Amino acid sequence: MEESYRCWLQYRFVQDTQRFYQYRKWVSNIVVARETEIINSAARELQDALKSMLNLKPSIWRHPFHQQPFLFLGSYEDINPENHGISASLLNRLDDEGYLLKTVNNQILVIGKTDRGTLYATFHLLRLLQCEQPIDSLEITDSPKNQLRMINQWDNMDGSIERGYSGNSIFFRDNDFVDDLTRVKNYARFLASVGINAISINNVNVWNLETRLITKEFLPKVKEVAEIFKSYAITVFLSINFASPIELGGLSTADPLDRDVQKWWENKAKEIYQYIPDFGGFVVKADSEGRPGPFTYHRSHAEGANVLARALKPYNGKVIWRCFVYNYLQDWRDRSTDRAKAAYDHFGPLDGQFLDNVILQIKNGPMDFQVREPVSPLLGAMKKTNQMIEFQITQEYTGQQIDVCYLVPQWKEVFDFDTYAQGESSTVKSIVNGSLYNCKYSGVAGVSNIGDDVNWTGHALAQANLYGFGRLIWNPDLSTEQITKEWIYLTFGIHQQVVEPIKWILLHSWETYENYTAPLGVGWMVNPNHHYGPNVDGYEYSKWGTYHFADRDGIGVDRTVETGTGYTAQYFSPCSEIYNSLECCPDELLLFFHHVPYSHQLKSGKTVIQHIYDTHFEGVETVKLFIKLWDSLEGKIDNGIFQNVKERLKRQLENAIEWRDQINTYFYRKSGVPDEKNRMIYR
Amino acid sequence: MEESYRCWLQYRFVQDTQRFYQYRKWVSNIVVARETEIINSAARELQDALKSMLNLKPSIWRHPFHQQPFLFLGSYEDINPENHGISASLLNRLDDEGYLLKTVNNQILVIGKTDRGTLYATFHLLRLLQCEQPIDSLEITDSPKNQLRMINQWDNMDGSIERGYSGNSIFFRDNDFVDDLTRVKNYARFLASVGINAISINNVNVWNLETRLITKEFLPKVKEVAEIFKSYAITVFLSINFASPIELGGLSTADPLDRDVQKWWENKAKEIYQYIPDFGGFVVKADSEGRPGPFTYHRSHAEGANVLARALKPYNGKVIWRCFVYNYLQDWRDRSTDRAKAAYDHFGPLDGQFLDNVILQIKNGPMDFQVREPVSPLLGAMKKTNQMIEFQITQEYTGQQIDVCYLVPQWKEVFDFDTYAQGESSTVKSIVNGSLYNCKYSGVAGVSNIGDDVNWTGHALAQANLYGFGRLIWNPDLSTEQITKEWIYLTFGIHQQVVEPIKWILLHSWETYENYTAPLGVGWMVNPNHHYGPNVDGYEYSKWGTYHFADRDGIGVDRTVETGTGYTAQYFSPCSEIYNSLECCPDELLLFFHHVPYSHQLKSGKTVIQHIYDTHFEGVETVKLFIKLWDSLEGKIDNGIFQNVKERLKRQLENAIEWRDQINTYFYRKSGVPDEKNRMIYR
Repeated sequence: MEESYRCWLQYRFVQDTQRFYQYRKWVSNIVVARETEIINSAARELQDALKSMLNLKPSIWRHPFHQQPFLFLGSYEDINPENHGISASLLNRLDDEGYLLKTVNNQILVIGKTDRGTLYATFHLLRLLQCEQPIDSLEITDSPKNQLRMINQWDNMDGSIERGYSGNSIFFRDNDFVDDLTRVKNYARFLASVGINAISINNVNVWNLETRLITKEFLPKVKEVAEIFKSYAITVFLSINFASPIELGGLSTADPLDRDVQKWWENKAKEIYQYIPDFGGFVVKADSEGRPGPFTYHRSHAEGANVLARALKPYNGKVIWRCFVYNYLQDWRDRSTDRAKAAYDHFGPLDGQFLDNVILQIKNGPMDFQVREPVSPLLGAMKKTNQMIEFQITQEYTGQQIDVCYLVPQWKEVFDFDTYAQGESSTVKSIVNGSLYNCKYSGVAGVSNIGDDVNWTGHALAQANLYGFGRLIWNPDLSTEQITKEWIYLTFGIHQQVVEPIKWILLHSWETYENYTAPLGVGWMVNPNHHYGPNVDGYEYSKWGTYHFADRDGIGVDRTVETGTGYTAQYFSPCSEIYNSLECCPDELLLFFHHVPYSHQLKSGKTVIQHIYDTHFEGVETVKLFIKLWDSLEGKIDNGIFQNVKERLKRQLENAIEWRDQINTYFYRKSGVPDEKNRMIYR
Repeated sequence: MEESYRCWLQYRFVQDTQRFYQYRKWVSNIVVARETEIINSAARELQDALKSMLNLKPSIWRHPFHQQPFLFLGSYEDINPENHGISASLLNRLDDEGYLLKTVNNQILVIGKTDRGTLYATFHLLRLLQCEQPIDSLEITDSPKNQLRMINQWDNMDGSIERGYSGNSIFFRDNDFVDDLTRVKNYARFLASVGINAISINNVNVWNLETRLITKEFLPKVKEVAEIFKSYAITVFLSINFASPIELGGLSTADPLDRDVQKWWENKAKEIYQYIPDFGGFVVKADSEGRPGPFTYHRSHAEGANVLARALKPYNGKVIWRCFVYNYLQDWRDRSTDRAKAAYDHFGPLDGQFLDNVILQIKNGPMDFQVREPVSPLLGAMKKTNQMIEFQITQEYTGQQIDVCYLVPQWKEVFDFDTYAQGESSTVKSIVNGSLYNCKYSGVAGVSNIGDDVNWTGHALAQANLYGFGRLIWNPDLSTEQITKEWIYLTFGIHQQVVEPIKWILLHSWETYENYTAPLGVGWMVNPNHHYGPNVDGYEYSKWGTYHFADRDGIGVDRTVETGTGYTAQYFSPCSEIYNSLECCPDELLLFFHHVPYSHQLKSGKTVIQHIYDTHFEGVETVKLFIKLWDSLEGKIDNGIFQNVKERLKRQLENAIEWRDQINTYFYRKSGVPDEKNRMIYR
């Protein structure tokens, strides 16, 4: 198997002799205190890893013993905490997925609050071993900070993936499930290793064939997939078609208040749970970009979501209802409509009307996964509604896994953003972890970036986004530095010569991509449809509500209360005032909120036009530096990965140059202002 | 059968009583002096038409008689000219396709120089009857002014048509020929009725499957189609893949100087002519937009064409070699490369090197079928090379049969353009009719606009383009007025209430389309790929070599000798000086040749920017007038056609408004100059 296929579960042979023998001492004997499917997965992972790292086949025991050191794999109920100096209160503080790693006398306890915790503890221990950390005196407790930690696959049954840049689906091919589910199982391992506990396996745009996933035609296959994920503590969801009662049920309506429709969904839920008793529920994109929804019947989104929620309720199923609802047939001439306002306007008034097993899934920004956007004002705006946030791991607008763009810093900024929804410290992370409003359900979803490319993510460095997503949503307080180092250690080993260049590239990649693409938060200067490469006016006269309004004098979208669309008023104070004020608005979002002359002076001291030129020249230079840094790794890392990234960086440089030149020429032609530093701007 | 299906061969019942009886008198008896396939077609057409127009089943005779009037259908050899007052010299002046229509005593002679002429004479007579003209004293001789009068189908075997806007192919479906060739036969009738004598039936881009059209797998079907066309005096050509020796022959090269390659083509020609003894030859798009060609082997286009010509020569076959060769991977930053110069640069130096059965097919303009372009400077530039011109009947850049755009006036302008290649009166028509340089072969090709839509052309008024193409290339001296009236008479009848509105729409449609789209000859402000609707910067940073260079100060492409690309030097004097001069260059081509400030004053007295605003407002107003005029026809014409055009005009208005607003806003934003008349320009 190619190295790139194994991602961050390389389980490299331990080079340090001291560690090697220390580890062997502890792990040659493993006590597996109870057998569940999940604990079996943990034990299997452990055995495979130890074979690979220590050339060791550990002895497995059912009960503890005293003479030799051993690893104790089990749950809370399998030990007497007091015997091991563990306070009951400590364990009580852990939630069901929490765990303890503790070295006590001759054993290392690998203990979960439940077997799910055991699995996570095992992966934690393996992480330590791979990073060659000491394990002689472990005392670690951890619990995930977010409840639902979910992946959304946008896979279609023909094998294609919407916004997929890594080959075809690992789930579907030729309008059916794939025969060989090996990759699905390995995917489950990767996801579990970073704490993911839920997955929806089909595209949120549910086409004809995919509508039938919830029928007996495909449910046996869904069940098969769900069982694989279940053994890794991951719950399977399906995206459904709101018009299913018509498409599948032959009803004349999908009106959520129609009794037959309600009955149909009740029966459908019953049928699904007969196949898959722990089925997670539905993900729904309704009344969005042409998909059917409750609006057809003049019903609200709450009424739409609740008909599903009521049907799933008896089985503890959830409805994840996406808030990506806006007018996608806008007229560019109309300056009063503002797509950024749509989610808040649609959903805000419905607060309190959703059943308690509905969760609203809100994209991190108000537009659509741009390289730079403000945080969605809907996050925190609904006090009586379960909310989760949606990130996009797949790099639709951020380089499509051709350009490197490590998104953990972006996501962390979003998590740390203070909405002031309940005064200071009302951060996004406190909203999506459910603590701010004490939500019953909450969490984080991410749109997957994997496909059937050998290395899963097309660009090997894009594996870091999947790893980082899992780790960060497990605990948004982890530092970017730590997550990044971890991923490099696990993927490439711990040698500084290798670690530092890769870390530098990753940590500068988002800023670099931002530098050479759309400036100052304005977004959308991208080729329509496929969304790769520059096209400054590509969306300027479109129906999508995505404009920059550049003219000979200035650029930007006036979203102020006084003269603009009034979008800034959707934020809590003082964010609303900060964004509304030309003086206070942060540079990086200036053009998202304000229309300014090219001569406008930024806080950086530069004019807007000079900032555009400077960042675009800088962006290209940084990519050249990436290439230099990467080239220094030749011979020091796996050659397959080396060549893969080298080839992508070459394409990234071409892309960055094209962006630089098109953007600079466009704005030079429009503004007539020359570059202060007299660099090459094509007429 | 729907009326729209019958196009201009409606054969309406003759309403005028006097004419009705006059016609019946002459045509109740028909002498068919000889039987050939082609004369049989003519006789059949005549009988069908008379049945429909006069409710008459004429008696057919083998020999003339004296008592009653009759129609005499035959060729020159069937009569004694002197007996009919026809001078031998008159008949000698007619070429093989020429004919005579003459009323002599009790007979109307419908006489061709050959049976092909007889067919054309028959259609001429039928045209007269349909227009309710007197036939008591006919004395008409006519010959086509152009030798090859050709249609190029861009049909693919999967049934799709490149740049087709009228449904799918009538030739191919599901990667094979269609089973039912009825439509092909009717198409042959329509083409013959306007004098077309050649057709290539597959796309010039020859993909994998189509490459195999010249193999025994498909040649029997090609033969079947060719026989249908043959009975209407139309010769069938095929577009071929230059790499056929590799693809089909298994050779390792397609090098035209390779002996095996030459042999392969010789054998291939032999094989084809065994199936189709009167096969026309090959149409070739080589080294163009990614298609294979002689450049791969460092051979010239002459060497490439000649290998085919040599193979076809023994069978009198021809090679039609397209000159649409340019760098399609241009860098927009490079201002020295000029796509407009490419055809001349590539082919000019090869004059005299092509074998005499090669004909170069040159697009009318140097770019690609824009609504307004100068005439290609390659036309007339090669004195020792057979040349034909290529027009595009299908409305790729001219409204796609959604917007009405009657192209006869455009083509006529091209024909009448004086190249000064041999001093004054070196018109394009004198080049393509072979007279200027006394070419062995010459002619005109047009890219077909038909598909399997019931009305053939999607937009019923687009039938006029096919009709007009045929009539105009038969004789470029026909007036637009005459061709247009003829088509309306034949299609809709002769009532002035009907004729005048339709004529007004047709005759103003090209100018109107030009008005609301790209101004002053600059072209290309269109959505990339599909080429419908506005996108001012759509091609501005592309690889296609199609730029307008608009900045805050001005717009246009400097193609002058002094400061630009030097393209103007490709014309003969005085055209080169006229185009090169800012003062002399005609307004409508100004931006094709010059980069000027928005404030530049046109010959019309307007500034460039005001011209842009004015024409775009006017364009929309004229479309509104089209709608009014068309609405006046309700109840007066076939309702199917009425509704079809009404629906298209509605879409045209939407398109015109979108063009107006995007163009005006774009240039207002860029120039900052307000409209003098203060009309609505969106910011």
